[in-house]
Amino acid sequence: MVVQRVAFQGEPGAYSEMAASHYFPTAALLPAKSFQNVFESLESGKVDFAVVPIENSIEGSVNETYDLLLVTNMTVCGEIYQKIRHCLIVNPGADDSKIRSVYSHPQALAQCRAYLQKKNLEPIATYDTAGAVKMIQQTGMVEAAAIASKRAADLYGMRICEESIEDKKNNYTRFLVLSKAQSKPTGNDGTSIIFSVRHIPGALFSILEEFARRRINLTKIESRPTKEVPWEYNFYVDFEGHSSEKEIKDLIRAIRKKTTFVKLLGSYKRGEFH
Amino acid sequence: MVVQRVAFQGEPGAYSEMAASHYFPTAALLPAKSFQNVFESLESGKVDFAVVPIENSIEGSVNETYDLLLVTNMTVCGEIYQKIRHCLIVNPGADDSKIRSVYSHPQALAQCRAYLQKKNLEPIATYDTAGAVKMIQQTGMVEAAAIASKRAADLYGMRICEESIEDKKNNYTRFLVLSKAQSKPTGNDGTSIIFSVRHIPGALFSILEEFARRRINLTKIESRPTKEVPWEYNFYVDFEGHSSEKEIKDLIRAIRKKTTFVKLLGSYKRGEFH
Repeated sequence: MVVQRVAFQGEPGAYSEMAASHYFPTAALLPAKSFQNVFESLESGKVDFAVVPIENSIEGSVNETYDLLLVTNMTVCGEIYQKIRHCLIVNPGADDSKIRSVYSHPQALAQCRAYLQKKNLEPIATYDTAGAVKMIQQTGMVEAAAIASKRAADLYGMRICEESIEDKKNNYTRFLVLSKAQSKPTGNDGTSIIFSVRHIPGALFSILEEFARRRINLTKIESRPTKEVPWEYNFYVDFEGHSSEKEIKDLIRAIRKKTTFVKLLGSYKRGEFH
Repeated sequence: MVVQRVAFQGEPGAYSEMAASHYFPTAALLPAKSFQNVFESLESGKVDFAVVPIENSIEGSVNETYDLLLVTNMTVCGEIYQKIRHCLIVNPGADDSKIRSVYSHPQALAQCRAYLQKKNLEPIATYDTAGAVKMIQQTGMVEAAAIASKRAADLYGMRICEESIEDKKNNYTRFLVLSKAQSKPTGNDGTSIIFSVRHIPGALFSILEEFARRRINLTKIESRPTKEVPWEYNFYVDFEGHSSEKEIKDLIRAIRKKTTFVKLLGSYKRGEFH
């Protein structure tokens, strides 16, 4: 049996790894230092799939993922919703009353802002959540904690001080599954595209009209700077339907006529909640 | 003569301070540790104005500013476009060939990503750009540099290794000027609003229709999670015109009928480039 290889960003124990393990229960999950490395692994064929965060229900979009989807040629072939439960994690021998600072990814720190203020703990940014656990374990720090998943605490043999310390309980991250191949329609699919329009009144409206006229439901619209011309944007739109359906083909043909650039990222079975 | 007091986030030498000094050449510019503190200073009357970044032409929106505009009651009364020129800054006695790591705000590090990779320098995140200069000055580190403005290098008596190290030269940050009072129309104004719609097909389209029908130019559209209901969004829209004009009043009245929530952030003279 061939084992599928799946790349994710971060150290073992990262939320991306949790999401990947739900989608690919039997695959080999391979950590990568940066999002750039994740995309490169997939492009070069070192892995068959990648799982990347695209959006969190509290913090919003993951800009770097959006930017990499534009400049690379990967296909979005799946979607996963992962519940985020942050834990305050310390070395087994630490005295909880002496904890002064907390290491984690800036987004995880932001999601526990009220909790950290209440407990008077100083947030210190690191490059990922599980990496912060590994760091305080390896240095044996006893006056510092990390914020990460229960999975990360277990993996590094650390103690959980407190579970579910996130300020808002409706905390989910939406992940995309990337590959080089298209997914077949399932009857419950979503499609993601990128387009840009000239800077004229009503240009975006005229695109959205194509969706509204066909009663195709937009599930997300996001704008990102083009990086070439200041204050010109690429729009990222997610909507219901599969690109192999006649109505969606017509829609994309109509959008091509009204835009300066269109990129079809892929169609995929809509995500389940974990 | 009464001196105006203006709050900005960061240490003296921050880009926010540069932007504030262009808009308020004679005011007292007061640093604040966090965006939250900036908004609180204005709310409590400790300052008359605040200058906050809202968007960068490369990295996109400043999420925390968007979120604070929603939950506070400040009026947007002005706009500034500030060119961002990042400098690599070291202690006067440092040997450039021995620099290994670079401290700065995550967004500044991201904007110099290609430069840092080429020079094989390790990026380390800090809470702001000028604060990183102050830190390497105070600790006397000679194997580390900071990325910040020329203003920050001058202020702390540090040496500039290299100027304009940003990967893309079209690097501007758009700042908003906040106060408690409305600005009068100037004939060249912009207006910012927030609204949310029910999760139904065509709801956003139906709002944009109100703009298109009046030929009112949208200059920016941004979505942010409501944080209460996952995957429900508030939309932030900037457009041309002043809320005291009849056409804009009609527009806002029409939008109120089609949304579950509308907040007028303010109308202001459109920004100049510095």
